[in-house]
Amino acid sequence: MADTAPETDAPCLWVVGTGPGDTAHLTPAAANAVRASTDVVGYGLYLDLLGDLMDGRERHEAPLGEETTRAEMALDLAADGRTTTLVSSGDAGVYAMASLLFERLAQRSASERERVRIEVLPGISAMQTAAARVGAPLGHDFCAISLSDLLTPWPVIERRVRAAADGDFVVAFYNPASRRRDWQLPAALEILRAARPADTPVVVARNLTRETEAITRTTLSALDPAQVDMLCVVLVGNAQTRVIDDWVYTPRGYAAKA
Amino acid sequence: MADTAPETDAPCLWVVGTGPGDTAHLTPAAANAVRASTDVVGYGLYLDLLGDLMDGRERHEAPLGEETTRAEMALDLAADGRTTTLVSSGDAGVYAMASLLFERLAQRSASERERVRIEVLPGISAMQTAAARVGAPLGHDFCAISLSDLLTPWPVIERRVRAAADGDFVVAFYNPASRRRDWQLPAALEILRAARPADTPVVVARNLTRETEAITRTTLSALDPAQVDMLCVVLVGNAQTRVIDDWVYTPRGYAAKA
Repeated sequence: MADTAPETDAPCLWVVGTGPGDTAHLTPAAANAVRASTDVVGYGLYLDLLGDLMDGRERHEAPLGEETTRAEMALDLAADGRTTTLVSSGDAGVYAMASLLFERLAQRSASERERVRIEVLPGISAMQTAAARVGAPLGHDFCAISLSDLLTPWPVIERRVRAAADGDFVVAFYNPASRRRDWQLPAALEILRAARPADTPVVVARNLTRETEAITRTTLSALDPAQVDMLCVVLVGNAQTRVIDDWVYTPRGYAAKA
Repeated sequence: MADTAPETDAPCLWVVGTGPGDTAHLTPAAANAVRASTDVVGYGLYLDLLGDLMDGRERHEAPLGEETTRAEMALDLAADGRTTTLVSSGDAGVYAMASLLFERLAQRSASERERVRIEVLPGISAMQTAAARVGAPLGHDFCAISLSDLLTPWPVIERRVRAAADGDFVVAFYNPASRRRDWQLPAALEILRAARPADTPVVVARNLTRETEAITRTTLSALDPAQVDMLCVVLVGNAQTRVIDDWVYTPRGYAAKA
């Protein structure tokens, strides 16, 4: 955005994702943003994962569920002239803090907005790490659907799952379940089971890149939703997705299947 | 995969994506794979982008269009005991080399396959960089569709675009056009235009992270397909996608729009 950024001495606010966990998947661009910042805002665990990068930086936390507070803190710090990084897990642009930041920015006046120069940096999202662990299930057309109905009404989510089934998309389910949300994944699976073969490959990735990481390869008929919780991402193959040894992959096109 | 990998002295074959361009978005994990390799296989331009990382490494190239040759070269090198990295642009797992590698692996015998220990590492895909440049258009449910009908029949692609319209997914179009493929993007846009408001935000990102990078913010009705070529990725917002100043973002959910 260098050539479109206004000539201004406004402070900079970077929005970065840490990737799936430790800094092995944090891009140099994101690491440099943190290093250049006086203040870093995030959920405590994600700030901890940054390790030495946090040395000498002021730390601003708010607990899980208080994402809006974190977005506002970052905007306030940047508006006050502090060079700030707002930290998400995964890719800040995918089910994460970047979109919320712009929602909050839109609530501020034009003169307030002008004082905050924002740059979003891309990161590695959970579905990508899950996919890499098992091969290349996202190798051709796919979609990402969040099964959380906290902010999106279930009929909208259900319509998306039906569309994913109609379009034979590989599907990455984010927020597939939680202690209070236990029927959404079974409902989504019912829709996909009606449209895809029973042996369609399914991957459940839990606690990616942590010591407790667990990757389960199963099938659409065998998947037990009781083994899926809020620490998981679930990938469901399409009609083309295949298995060789322990690998799961979706070929580039139909011709390749001939 | 450390706990599931066989106890073996088989050579290692890493599959990595460079991200959108230079090494600013290459993860440390991917950079370490290249550093640990004796041999690196890729399209020449992508190997050039690795810069100093290539020092002391044997370089194996094949031109654009010879992706299968590159996949076979990487498998052969690894089977011969060379520690090898196969390089894609973007995320190797998204419309890139990883899926093709497993297609070729599946053609080999079980004993040949056992000699090649593979690890895929995730990377930043073009849609993520494009999204970050303009804000957070992929902030909620989205799909990725390749408009190339070289390996996928058009009716399959068209069915996916219709499903994306039905499901109100934000859409990332890969391979939107080329000199010989000029009618697919107009056909896809016609489907989306029938389902979404004329002022739906659209982003065309060309030559991401290069000096010639160009980001165009437009709308579904105003987008001129003649300005889109094979160096572009196109993002089309959904009914929720909004604009504030120069930013484009899709809120986390419908409640947020209230």
